[in-house]
Amino acid sequence: MAIHHALSGEMIDIRPLGSALNRTRTSTLYKTQHLEVFRMVLLAGKEMPEHEVVGELTVQCLEGSVEFSIGTTRDVMRPGDLKCLAGGIPHALRALETRLSWSPCCFITHRIVHTMGTLAMRWHFDA
Amino acid sequence: MAIHHALSGEMIDIRPLGSALNRTRTSTLYKTQHLEVFRMVLLAGKEMPEHEVVGELTVQCLEGSVEFSIGTTRDVMRPGDLKCLAGGIPHALRALETRLSWSPCCFITHRIVHTMGTLAMRWHFDA
Repeated sequence: MAIHHALSGEMIDIRPLGSALNRTRTSTLYKTQHLEVFRMVLLAGKEMPEHEVVGELTVQCLEGSVEFSIGTTRDVMRPGDLKCLAGGIPHALRALETRLSWSPCCFITHRIVHTMGTLAMRWHFDA
Repeated sequence: MAIHHALSGEMIDIRPLGSALNRTRTSTLYKTQHLEVFRMVLLAGKEMPEHEVVGELTVQCLEGSVEFSIGTTRDVMRPGDLKCLAGGIPHALRALETRLSWSPCCFITHRIVHTMGTLAMRWHFDA
């Protein structure tokens, strides 16, 4: 079955999933040439090792808690916390286990795709 | 006093403001050459008339409720609702009054700035 991406203007529900989060996978909510919006699910205790992306991104915690690291700086993000990150910055995420909750965490990521920006930069440099 | 925009990687609190929302103004949370993130406050009953922007945008309702119109299509957005909109689409917003609440609505907007993309397009067309 093809994965459904929302159309421009379509309503997307990003409310907390509660117990359904355990059987929910990471999915792309919206994807165009310039913008990708993901709902990411990270199982408690699991991590996304340090990585970087070309374009800017934002990360908003929707549910659970996640440790967000940039180098040696670590912040714990909870629902209602947002971070905006410049492109090319190495960062890592780890879903936290607490005594109260072993459930996964869930966050939404906006990633700005700079394919065309890169072309423009090249054009500037070549001129 | 200069308006504080968050730095890359800085934690931004976008939790509901409750009674403090009445004395909170729209503010830019993060701004770079490619991405602008706003926390917008619209007083109950007030509207943002039909307008369009060049780049893509996303609108997420944080608090209250807002009617989002694209042409004759109207959706009521409540906390946890998200819309992603292609660039150049005329749209309007109206903060809803309900019998239960006369408080403003608040939403967060990610706007993708396509200055460089536009340059790239021109480069393609001229080649």
